[in-house]
Amino acid sequence: MELSVPYGVIGSTGRMGREIAAAAGGTPCLCVWDEGETCEGSPRVIFDFSSAAVLPRTVELCRRHKSALVMGTTALNDGHMAALRGLAEEVPVVQSFNYSIGIAVMAMILRDYAPLLADWDAEIAEAHHIHKKDAPSGTALMLGRALGRDVPMHSFRLGGLPGDHEALFGNEGETLSVHHRAISRSVFAIGAVRAARFALTKEKGLFTFEDVVRG
Amino acid sequence: MELSVPYGVIGSTGRMGREIAAAAGGTPCLCVWDEGETCEGSPRVIFDFSSAAVLPRTVELCRRHKSALVMGTTALNDGHMAALRGLAEEVPVVQSFNYSIGIAVMAMILRDYAPLLADWDAEIAEAHHIHKKDAPSGTALMLGRALGRDVPMHSFRLGGLPGDHEALFGNEGETLSVHHRAISRSVFAIGAVRAARFALTKEKGLFTFEDVVRG
Amino acid sequence: MELSVPYGVIGSTGRMGREIAAAAGGTPCLCVWDEGETCEGSPRVIFDFSSAAVLPRTVELCRRHKSALVMGTTALNDGHMAALRGLAEEVPVVQSFNYSIGIAVMAMILRDYAPLLADWDAEIAEAHHIHKKDAPSGTALMLGRALGRDVPMHSFRLGGLPGDHEALFGNEGETLSVHHRAISRSVFAIGAVRAARFALTKEKGLFTFEDVVRG
Amino acid sequence: MELSVPYGVIGSTGRMGREIAAAAGGTPCLCVWDEGETCEGSPRVIFDFSSAAVLPRTVELCRRHKSALVMGTTALNDGHMAALRGLAEEVPVVQSFNYSIGIAVMAMILRDYAPLLADWDAEIAEAHHIHKKDAPSGTALMLGRALGRDVPMHSFRLGGLPGDHEALFGNEGETLSVHHRAISRSVFAIGAVRAARFALTKEKGLFTFEDVVRG
Repeated sequence: MELSVPYGVIGSTGRMGREIAAAAGGTPCLCVWDEGETCEGSPRVIFDFSSAAVLPRTVELCRRHKSALVMGTTALNDGHMAALRGLAEEVPVVQSFNYSIGIAVMAMILRDYAPLLADWDAEIAEAHHIHKKDAPSGTALMLGRALGRDVPMHSFRLGGLPGDHEALFGNEGETLSVHHRAISRSVFAIGAVRAARFALTKEKGLFTFEDVVRG
Repeated sequence: MELSVPYGVIGSTGRMGREIAAAAGGTPCLCVWDEGETCEGSPRVIFDFSSAAVLPRTVELCRRHKSALVMGTTALNDGHMAALRGLAEEVPVVQSFNYSIGIAVMAMILRDYAPLLADWDAEIAEAHHIHKKDAPSGTALMLGRALGRDVPMHSFRLGGLPGDHEALFGNEGETLSVHHRAISRSVFAIGAVRAARFALTKEKGLFTFEDVVRG
Repeated sequence: MELSVPYGVIGSTGRMGREIAAAAGGTPCLCVWDEGETCEGSPRVIFDFSSAAVLPRTVELCRRHKSALVMGTTALNDGHMAALRGLAEEVPVVQSFNYSIGIAVMAMILRDYAPLLADWDAEIAEAHHIHKKDAPSGTALMLGRALGRDVPMHSFRLGGLPGDHEALFGNEGETLSVHHRAISRSVFAIGAVRAARFALTKEKGLFTFEDVVRG
Repeated sequence: MELSVPYGVIGSTGRMGREIAAAAGGTPCLCVWDEGETCEGSPRVIFDFSSAAVLPRTVELCRRHKSALVMGTTALNDGHMAALRGLAEEVPVVQSFNYSIGIAVMAMILRDYAPLLADWDAEIAEAHHIHKKDAPSGTALMLGRALGRDVPMHSFRLGGLPGDHEALFGNEGETLSVHHRAISRSVFAIGAVRAARFALTKEKGLFTFEDVVRG
């Protein structure tokens, strides 16, 4: 499962940066963090799960090294997306707000099958650790969009839960639900490495995580 | 499981009255409803799951027939409770707002064990059919009181669900939950008949459904 | 939701036959049972959830009345299927072993998405009432075929449960599951009436319940 | 939550030994492992979650340092238990096969309330990571003993699940279940430190983890 090519990590000292390095194996040949940067050799793929503010630097590094990009930063605006589309004309770029394979499949299921349950009631529930500030979770909101209609949302906050999401449907005689559970926070790093492996098979272009999962 | 003694039903034409007759078997010898009353012989036990307004009539009938009472009416005030205590000096009276055996056991579990989880986070969830008006359910509120502290409550409304209740606890490393599910609405009538059978073994006194379940 | 055309029921005195009549509303104009048959007028659609042995009689009745057929009998062999294909050249025929909308959607989800989870572990669990003889349930076996690979199966037998089915997937960092729950046994009759309404829009042909659900 | 007294760890280089040190904080003053032993100062409490074979050495160390013992080794025989009882006449000893607080509470619930559900059907399910060799889990067997009667057991093996256990009860009209879920494998180390804190308040005696949880 390890990545066998030189890679770079933007935000290398943050929690997500360290988990990506653990999942990819070895040592990144390019590290960028708040106060500095090290580079030994040329990365074939760069991971950026840091902050939208550093996106111009990330794009420049990808161009210089002709490196693929796996982009997991949230809160991207239209300008950021335009920059990624520009870069994708030269190198492969995977962009997603959620790198969990199970969440990606769950969103596809809801998008494809919720329309067949249009006359059923539907609700979404999510459960996370007690320290999570926002509610509902960004993932729950994304799943609600995939489901295609406004539904009630419930947020549970319990101990150290890494993150559960459930979509529930019911009619007079039956219920159907889809339930995702994160076992550990490493799940996103595992998905990011899978995205990198996918990107390395492409010449250029902008890809979603659904492309990766279907890949 | 049938009741083999003559019995009466207050509110005999309502849904709960009919389900009690179905669970008790045979035909009630005493029937009271909005517009009338029939009585053939003398009931050994009377079921009242109708309305607090008819309580005086119910008490009078129990006194006249020296009949036990299984009382399931909700929204009883202090005056109603005083009347039941008075009656209980003469005949056995079981009074509860919920005649599900599983809910009774769940409430006991929460009362006895939630104190050992006082430093865990806790929440309550309930799910009912889409036509249910009140939220949270009265049963969820009762379970919250058994749990012994104020906790967040979530109400799901989906299709034809007869009624689910769950109490969830979580700390940093684990979760523990207790989950009750009504399979059909007959569950309360089955519990009422069990309460009647219990009452028939007593001389007099006011009993809870917990007394019945521990029976 | 009621069916507003004349209809017939093969096996009209059995449990499923009576539930179909309850779901379709009114009185069937054609009733066939072990010891007899009544017919007043001409059915537009005939339901057969009885036994493979009476299939020849059912096919003959459909031909005579130019009636659509909703076929829910299990244990059909190749000869029976050939007879249905023959009939479908003249009238619309819906044939399925399971008329639950939720189970049909669950099977489609497994067929379409289990291949994306080919490197995850998978298991199937089902729970039914204590009187159910066979294990795993026929529906669990069908879901296993939809899933596309052999997986461990678990059968729970508890009280009066009408029927739960769950497919569970897990990898190192996450789990994903799809869970169906029958609230009441009427769910199949509701689906059969939906199939009838679908069939009435067709000239002829053999259809699956997936065709009905995709409608 | 950290332990603020000098402590020792038998099996200090194993996974459980390292997790106990992480949960207790600081550095153990006494470390024992396969090939050696270090000791700086005198431990007030010693943790042993290693192997029954080293029990004599552990007992000797506790005697020498007048140290409390938290004993989590499995597969103890009658001779081992006799040795612990002997030690408990001099120092406090906590002995348990499972140091999860939630599992301890679940076992108490089953012991106290399963008798009230004696006429309900019951089953136990457990789910663990795919690498787990034994099935059912030792914890499931212990919960079965707490439940007080032989019940069917189901073992799911999925990805990286740290460990779920569920006891399910059902009668004709309702189900009741108790469900425990380990979020991370650190749960046992957290419980072991809680046991140490409890033991430090005692003079001597043999205690169960239930004593610790009831505190």
